[in-house]
Amino acid sequence: MIRVLKGNLISAPRLGELHVAEGGCLVLEDGVIRGVFHKLPEQYAAAPVTDYGDRLILQSFADMHLHAPQYPMLGMGMDQPLLAWLNSYAFPTEARFSDPHYARIIYRRLAEELIANGTTRVCMFSSLHTEATWVLMEELENAGVTGYVGKVNMDRNGAPGLLQETTEESVRETIRWLEGCRFDHVKPILTPRFTPSCTDELMEKLGAIAAERGLYVQSHLSENRDEIAWVRRLHPDCSQYWETYDKYGLWKDHTVMAHCVHSDERERDAMRRAGVVAVHCPDSNVNICSGICPVRQMLREGVWVTLGSDIAGGDQLPMYRVIASAIRASKARNIMDNGRTEPLTVEEAYYLGTTSGHRFFGAREGFASGDRLHAIVVDDSDFPDSGYRLSLTQRFERALYLMDSCSIAAVWSDGRCVVEKL
Amino acid sequence: MIRVLKGNLISAPRLGELHVAEGGCLVLEDGVIRGVFHKLPEQYAAAPVTDYGDRLILQSFADMHLHAPQYPMLGMGMDQPLLAWLNSYAFPTEARFSDPHYARIIYRRLAEELIANGTTRVCMFSSLHTEATWVLMEELENAGVTGYVGKVNMDRNGAPGLLQETTEESVRETIRWLEGCRFDHVKPILTPRFTPSCTDELMEKLGAIAAERGLYVQSHLSENRDEIAWVRRLHPDCSQYWETYDKYGLWKDHTVMAHCVHSDERERDAMRRAGVVAVHCPDSNVNICSGICPVRQMLREGVWVTLGSDIAGGDQLPMYRVIASAIRASKARNIMDNGRTEPLTVEEAYYLGTTSGHRFFGAREGFASGDRLHAIVVDDSDFPDSGYRLSLTQRFERALYLMDSCSIAAVWSDGRCVVEKL
Repeated sequence: MIRVLKGNLISAPRLGELHVAEGGCLVLEDGVIRGVFHKLPEQYAAAPVTDYGDRLILQSFADMHLHAPQYPMLGMGMDQPLLAWLNSYAFPTEARFSDPHYARIIYRRLAEELIANGTTRVCMFSSLHTEATWVLMEELENAGVTGYVGKVNMDRNGAPGLLQETTEESVRETIRWLEGCRFDHVKPILTPRFTPSCTDELMEKLGAIAAERGLYVQSHLSENRDEIAWVRRLHPDCSQYWETYDKYGLWKDHTVMAHCVHSDERERDAMRRAGVVAVHCPDSNVNICSGICPVRQMLREGVWVTLGSDIAGGDQLPMYRVIASAIRASKARNIMDNGRTEPLTVEEAYYLGTTSGHRFFGAREGFASGDRLHAIVVDDSDFPDSGYRLSLTQRFERALYLMDSCSIAAVWSDGRCVVEKL
Repeated sequence: MIRVLKGNLISAPRLGELHVAEGGCLVLEDGVIRGVFHKLPEQYAAAPVTDYGDRLILQSFADMHLHAPQYPMLGMGMDQPLLAWLNSYAFPTEARFSDPHYARIIYRRLAEELIANGTTRVCMFSSLHTEATWVLMEELENAGVTGYVGKVNMDRNGAPGLLQETTEESVRETIRWLEGCRFDHVKPILTPRFTPSCTDELMEKLGAIAAERGLYVQSHLSENRDEIAWVRRLHPDCSQYWETYDKYGLWKDHTVMAHCVHSDERERDAMRRAGVVAVHCPDSNVNICSGICPVRQMLREGVWVTLGSDIAGGDQLPMYRVIASAIRASKARNIMDNGRTEPLTVEEAYYLGTTSGHRFFGAREGFASGDRLHAIVVDDSDFPDSGYRLSLTQRFERALYLMDSCSIAAVWSDGRCVVEKL
């Protein structure tokens, strides 16, 4: 089944570059992109056309780090540093997800808000609750969000009696959870919360499960100086934080590490060599005063950098807002460095929030032929009249700064149109 | 005419303090606050009641610095530094306002967006066009926005032939504009754009007009290092930027100075002694890489600090967003200082965006008896269910981070209810 989408197509084939097809055509065959054309080739002349008119067709967003069970505490507790904030807000909130009925209500809403804001791929933390994690996966699946979800593992330094497992429980529930994951578009990923939350025994078992079942791994790395010092006390045998994952086979190709704010050159080099994905979470890093991640430096070194909303350390779920925040954080870094470090451009930040994340899921660059379509259609006709004709790149920049869920007229996820408001 | 508003009243009587009246009553007499009570006094028992139920009644916001004619370019040109950005974006956009018809369309929308987002008081730049400035004042008046608007003066270093006056024109048009201002709630304020835009002769004449007519003055100060160096070249006789205003009688009680990012101790001391109002514009300062304003230091020294959206250097018009951005900017400062400078708390930033600004217009602190009511009613019932009963201060924090114009159920401006969606 061939189908043609018409509109102003703007994608990010490479860091800092845009591919623009003004009034262009995207040809889809069974949800798979066959090509982007300035003018429709003759062979597709008979195919049905969805004409998005003068609207912008952008890549959808990939949110590579967020905590689903922290969604209810969005915008609260922002005056606290990481470790205090975990104990006073995050753990008690996550503990509520022992109730699958509560999980159903919250996760349905989260899934709907994600898709309405154009996030079609996620790499997400659930809580440690098996049932609630299945509920989350099912709600994402139903809403059209695709990607990876992890049941959290945490057998120490949680909230005993409220939010903590024994080692045995953690392993047993992980296996039970994995066996029960039967979703087409949402897959499991192993999720030790972070080194302080997992005993060596648990880490070792998770490493073995990852190897046996060929699973990806996600966790946190070098977010905050107190956390790094804590990890050092817990693992005196490891000279750096990343080695506490590496020791157990959890530091490998496609391992997703959130934050990496304080990763130094050696740790960043270990990321690059292993094919580890860094998730930059600018709102969260500023909100809880973790630091300003040296994103430009990481990019220069060839580290794989993506973006995450990190709700609820981050207070904004929409990835277009996170993209704007990544630009702002890079400007704060520029200011700190007295102008030495070039800030991220709009094009670069868009690449990080789209292509760079989509690659994790096996996609290629931009709207590449052979990939299943992940896209949003943005209607900017209601933005203030600029009084002159804007170029498409100007409209693109403005859309990233000004859009909200109301401006997103359609969402395509994994080749399917999952939101259509036209 | 006595009237009672019931709801959860939260105001900022002092920096860092909240006054909370859960299920309280605010008594209004002809738009003037007669008191806030936990329990309605007997004497008002017969007065008609507007019951806002479990909603939050907050102070409305004061936006102390924004450029109305830059509204059409919101979210564009964010990759450029101040002086380049002025020439490539701001000046050509402002030039369009020679057309009063275009001004009518844009300013009506701006006024509606301000009031819908709970901004009831402004201190605002227009362009240099007299007719468009009247249109702006009229549209603000009609929408229920109150405050000060300034026709901009600029007789050098603008865009000759496009956006620049002769000295004679600038003075003549300023007088003509002042004579034609007949609005109840929107008053004129003298507005030399900034020192590089005004010849000494023009500055001198504006100083005389300010003195003769008892007018307030607004301008820009120490936003960017290149700008400061430029001012130094233009005024070799002045050792600091502020002296270029002081020299002409423009540096005085209630003079409003936007930015003050790079004002040092001496310049800040001059502000404090004169009663000059600093407007902190966090989004703008980060967007165009001006710097991170030392707000904590200014507050410690007793400088009068308020907040501004500074659209379109800032990309966000709603002041609740600017409040969140001020907190984030203060956290960036904390990170830069290795934790030495305490970030702004939510309560402090709320004070800066409300009471501190309202004081400019003659109001006292919080919901003070004798003041005309400026308030918003926030409906947070549609925010994600936190799963437990939140305190009012938690709801207050969350509202500041999560609200949008849809959550603002009513707006009171100068004692009148100007938005009512219940």
